[in-house]
Amino acid sequence: MISGFAIGHHQVRAPGWQTGTTVIVAEDGATAGVDVRGGGPGTRETDALDPTTLTQQAHALVLTGGSAYGLAAADGVMQALAERNIGFPVGTEPHEVVPIVPAAVIFDLGRGGEFGNRPTAEFGRLALANATTDDPAQGTVGAGTGAVCGGVAGGFGYTEITIDGDQPITVAAAAVVNAAGSAVDPGTGRLWADRTRRLPAPTPEQCTALSEARTNAASINTTIGVILTDATLTKAQANKVAQVAHDGLARAITPVHSMTDGDTIFCMASGTDAPLPHTPAGVTTFNTILEKAAEAFTEACLNAMTHAESHGRWQSYTALTT
Amino acid sequence: MISGFAIGHHQVRAPGWQTGTTVIVAEDGATAGVDVRGGGPGTRETDALDPTTLTQQAHALVLTGGSAYGLAAADGVMQALAERNIGFPVGTEPHEVVPIVPAAVIFDLGRGGEFGNRPTAEFGRLALANATTDDPAQGTVGAGTGAVCGGVAGGFGYTEITIDGDQPITVAAAAVVNAAGSAVDPGTGRLWADRTRRLPAPTPEQCTALSEARTNAASINTTIGVILTDATLTKAQANKVAQVAHDGLARAITPVHSMTDGDTIFCMASGTDAPLPHTPAGVTTFNTILEKAAEAFTEACLNAMTHAESHGRWQSYTALTT
Repeated sequence: MISGFAIGHHQVRAPGWQTGTTVIVAEDGATAGVDVRGGGPGTRETDALDPTTLTQQAHALVLTGGSAYGLAAADGVMQALAERNIGFPVGTEPHEVVPIVPAAVIFDLGRGGEFGNRPTAEFGRLALANATTDDPAQGTVGAGTGAVCGGVAGGFGYTEITIDGDQPITVAAAAVVNAAGSAVDPGTGRLWADRTRRLPAPTPEQCTALSEARTNAASINTTIGVILTDATLTKAQANKVAQVAHDGLARAITPVHSMTDGDTIFCMASGTDAPLPHTPAGVTTFNTILEKAAEAFTEACLNAMTHAESHGRWQSYTALTT
Repeated sequence: MISGFAIGHHQVRAPGWQTGTTVIVAEDGATAGVDVRGGGPGTRETDALDPTTLTQQAHALVLTGGSAYGLAAADGVMQALAERNIGFPVGTEPHEVVPIVPAAVIFDLGRGGEFGNRPTAEFGRLALANATTDDPAQGTVGAGTGAVCGGVAGGFGYTEITIDGDQPITVAAAAVVNAAGSAVDPGTGRLWADRTRRLPAPTPEQCTALSEARTNAASINTTIGVILTDATLTKAQANKVAQVAHDGLARAITPVHSMTDGDTIFCMASGTDAPLPHTPAGVTTFNTILEKAAEAFTEACLNAMTHAESHGRWQSYTALTT
């Protein structure tokens, strides 16, 4: 997996339960930004990511189910990081730190059958404890556990793109796809995110089944995610990357950014080299990062949809097309 | 107290502890906005207050100590409100609600002697349980318990201003004064917020004592607060009120809005009449609300300073000038 980061999931799939939490950790800190484009966001610590503020780095990011209740998961992550002296130093002792842990939530309340079963601080702590530098599990895991997208099971997706060059740059995306809109092109039954038509075309019968599933859509949703990169970015650049990543979301889901979506995308950059130069070459490199961030986000949405398992009354895209 | 709101404090002043939480409740909801101007904000659910988003109302506001750790207090408030079916309806059953509970924090870690003693979810629940429609206690209470301002004890202050007219409008302000800058004019020893010189002028000896206290200042601080009004405002107007209230903060504290302050002011409007008309008269009324919001915030800062008690190594302004 991309260097500088670890990812961990915790989820509960049990009678009454279908929700979870994903934590992306940057123990050494990562320069972070965010762009909130949905009409119903549930967030925490996003103001600290504004380029004008003091703290340049976030130490972990929480993506979680539970709607605004799920913001509690960040408490558990903060506590556990503080126990390891990881955070913004605010005193003279090693333990005098405040971890910067932004968070965003998806709406999945009641997807497991019980409205009140939602992630707690403990979910955040357990997801953090599960974090590894292995490629993360995808589909019906972590924050994607209760996800639904346009009447089809949603989920968690991940991908990485390498930009070749003297100094190769990796751009990764993690997406929790849980949109009010649809990931499926109603004209073809293909996933919008499958822009190069790698998956087989659904049959007419499968298209009908997909169309019927669409009527099973939930009304309140949200897609959230993050672009991770090993490039060295300023905080303003990290905010710009988060902004352009929403273009990748727009290509994967239609309609998107609605009033009942809380669509929020973060960016975390782990690089510690000199910043990109203010030269035409530096701008070209940054433009490539922006382009690949959008491309990676679309691909992460594709992976979320293709790895998702059926749950509750929501069938997976895979189940509906095979 | 202003109609439509209740205020409650919870604090712990005990060996190792000097911190607390204040909750402002609007059970029927209040149209809410926010303006974050500090360089080190710690916030929650502020994105949901953007005028473009779906939810028009907040159900409670949490002002708390504990730096970003203190955001946990909002979890307890959300849980307790949900138990009473108060929140944004997201389903068909009365209990299927998500309370909108924005929050902002002050930095007071270690002020009681133990860095790790900070507000938890339980602080939020207890402050909510203490909420009444009586005028709130001021000084070293609630979120102001561990406050320090420019080397002098800070605290929680409250005030109300009535705008006369056919339909009188009340504009109230609550402020938790905990600034990196100073509330004291070094030239006179007076409080900047005492713009009409109601308090006696400090003696030269008292000025010297105030000046020496200034060297006792903490380096990381934050002033937070809220403008409450019974006027009927749009969400965009509520954001505008929050913005102009920062002018009142600027008049009370010098310097202010620094990189080590997380200065954040909210606005909550409880009115349910028709919105102010788009006429010169309507604009005049709204301009008066803006002017009084700034004036009230300055006055709330004054009350915070004059009601504060000495704690730890920080003496109160009152103790230093009497």
